[in-house]
Amino acid sequence: MQFVAQSIAARARAASAALTLTPTETKNAILRNLAVRIESGTERLHAANEADLAEARRNGLPESKLRRLALSAAAVQQMADGLRQVADLPDPVGQVTRDLRMPSGLHVRKVRSPIGVILMIYEARANVTIDAFALCFKSGNACILKGGREAAQSNQALLSMAVASLAEHGAPIDSVQLITSSDREEMKALLCLSEQIDLVIPRGGHELIRFVHEHSRIPMVQHFQGVCHIFVDATADVPKAIDICVSAKTSAPAACNAVETLLVHTDIARQFVPTLADRMAHAGVELRGDATVCRLAPNAVPAADEDWGREFLDLIVAVRIVAGIDEAIAHVRRYGSNHTDAILSRDEANQRRFIEQVQSSCTLVNCSTRFNDGYQLGLGAEIGISTSKIHAYGPMGLEELTTQRYVVVGDGQCR
Amino acid sequence: MQFVAQSIAARARAASAALTLTPTETKNAILRNLAVRIESGTERLHAANEADLAEARRNGLPESKLRRLALSAAAVQQMADGLRQVADLPDPVGQVTRDLRMPSGLHVRKVRSPIGVILMIYEARANVTIDAFALCFKSGNACILKGGREAAQSNQALLSMAVASLAEHGAPIDSVQLITSSDREEMKALLCLSEQIDLVIPRGGHELIRFVHEHSRIPMVQHFQGVCHIFVDATADVPKAIDICVSAKTSAPAACNAVETLLVHTDIARQFVPTLADRMAHAGVELRGDATVCRLAPNAVPAADEDWGREFLDLIVAVRIVAGIDEAIAHVRRYGSNHTDAILSRDEANQRRFIEQVQSSCTLVNCSTRFNDGYQLGLGAEIGISTSKIHAYGPMGLEELTTQRYVVVGDGQCR
Repeated sequence: MQFVAQSIAARARAASAALTLTPTETKNAILRNLAVRIESGTERLHAANEADLAEARRNGLPESKLRRLALSAAAVQQMADGLRQVADLPDPVGQVTRDLRMPSGLHVRKVRSPIGVILMIYEARANVTIDAFALCFKSGNACILKGGREAAQSNQALLSMAVASLAEHGAPIDSVQLITSSDREEMKALLCLSEQIDLVIPRGGHELIRFVHEHSRIPMVQHFQGVCHIFVDATADVPKAIDICVSAKTSAPAACNAVETLLVHTDIARQFVPTLADRMAHAGVELRGDATVCRLAPNAVPAADEDWGREFLDLIVAVRIVAGIDEAIAHVRRYGSNHTDAILSRDEANQRRFIEQVQSSCTLVNCSTRFNDGYQLGLGAEIGISTSKIHAYGPMGLEELTTQRYVVVGDGQCR
Repeated sequence: MQFVAQSIAARARAASAALTLTPTETKNAILRNLAVRIESGTERLHAANEADLAEARRNGLPESKLRRLALSAAAVQQMADGLRQVADLPDPVGQVTRDLRMPSGLHVRKVRSPIGVILMIYEARANVTIDAFALCFKSGNACILKGGREAAQSNQALLSMAVASLAEHGAPIDSVQLITSSDREEMKALLCLSEQIDLVIPRGGHELIRFVHEHSRIPMVQHFQGVCHIFVDATADVPKAIDICVSAKTSAPAACNAVETLLVHTDIARQFVPTLADRMAHAGVELRGDATVCRLAPNAVPAADEDWGREFLDLIVAVRIVAGIDEAIAHVRRYGSNHTDAILSRDEANQRRFIEQVQSSCTLVNCSTRFNDGYQLGLGAEIGISTSKIHAYGPMGLEELTTQRYVVVGDGQCR
């Protein structure tokens, strides 16, 4: 399928102007309408997804990628439920975040407004198509979605449902556009259109992020990898720490907020590591340890240099013994990805130091890294987790998809 | 003067790590100390500024640029006063912007934190050097300042005072570094160091913004030109509207928030334009009008096509008659720069429409565009006015120089 960057961007820009005038009730009705369409169109979605899966198998995609590509009945229901949840959330557009009466007599307000046109580039999962549309649309933005080539038919089926819902309520159908082609030159052309597109959100691995970083002239908020650390301090509550570390690795090994490296204080290592190794082994997790860890845990294998700072996305965890909090902080600063890092400690001074010096998008104390998630942190829904410090850092929900501008009302003031 | 991008960026990164631990009182003491140094070093500053001016005259700089380059006694005092004002403002670092107890038992806070390392690129004015340092430093960021070549000696004198204040209080002297060289290749190298530098803020004209836009791999918040519009609606209060339009052009013609184009409703044109033309002529302002304006105001000259959307930065204003609010909004959307636009109207429906459809960083009703300014909008101080919708839109003060990250405290929660 061919695409022409200029015309896609121009259509999105026109839709975005119309969206600033679309009332909240209309936006919510469209989201609920789409939920019904998805529920009643399950068979069509499964057929499209089966076609994607068959093609992927022909192309020899690995089993882990096939799993991410498959749209189960539960996943389809989750998309519909997610749409209703977003419809239930308050509309961020028009929210007043600052309200001042100035000595000049001016009434100054800071008001949330749509960003405009958002280009989202992501990989295989088709549910992202619906999540991204729902959040961008509810926050008044037109979106251009570039999904993974593998999910082309699933995405196309979902898109046609979204377009039908928009049309039924008289909203601009170009509020969402899908790019299924993987023509790199066209993609580069699109990434140069900073007059028409206000924000690009790449969500994925090294190669995708690097491509966008290199070619984009559009402001970017990246959702990059989560190289998440847990530091187990000398004063950690050992049974709780074991539970946290095991569940942070095993409850969703391929999630970006799963832990990848454990840093264990040397004073607690003898007590902690053997039990940890045992529990991890039972959960089918491979331990890659430094020399001390390998001595304390016979089932551990020696970690290679490149295992530090690596996002395994699998049942593998790297474990290293550190002399204290300073070494732990230095390790996180060097190898972390600004995503999610936790300290397990009963020492309040150490908790504070970790929070102050580890500047990841979410720094946690005495709980699992898996809590860095829009629902768990009270955002209601998220489009992904930003590892960019600019604009939005951490889970990006509806508010993070808006900008804030000043609206000032006077009665003749000059200056 | 040669500079080596890598080493400058690495020193800034190291300083930024230390700054996350610098207490508010120390930061404030350094800002006040620098105010005193500037006051007592006025002679040294004037000597440096004289050297810059002499060089600029030798190079044939136009009078308007020489005026911007000159550091008057009042300007020096303003820098010292500005430093004390920033010291008096609350420290944004550590401010809690969201505070939730989740059903999981987690205590979730969103906390303001420094961005890290900020590269600021600006043009001739030396006072920006002090403003930028004060705001970046107070918000916990290390900054790299690239000032205009013309102001090299003035900037160097100011920098050495800032470094002395940092050193006196044991803060990292690399919290602020100045680049006086204009080596474009080195600048491009610096703009590629997205691992070390978190944000670039270019503040200036077309050429500067384009250069940074083209070469930067670092997230950018741009402070671009202000092509500011005032729409005089049919129901405007004419005497007030005249005062607002004249002062918005004349009170600081070279300011980015000065008005550049007036759009006048056709129904009020006969009543409004002749008086406007008269008052503007008295103030020495050249009117460039469309055909109708030229008929109504004999002193107006015909506007050229390129006068619409042009930032004159001078005693010149373009005036156009429009058929109504839709044409006015369309004009602003086409020619505006997302900076500042105002409507003068007694019709509340039209006020609302203008606010909703003109999405500039500051949209004003019944007052001058000159109020889009950090002090006037209650920010206390500003580093400039962002025309980027991402991260910060409008005046950038201390809060806008921070990021917000999540700090989550639990007592053993797994997920």
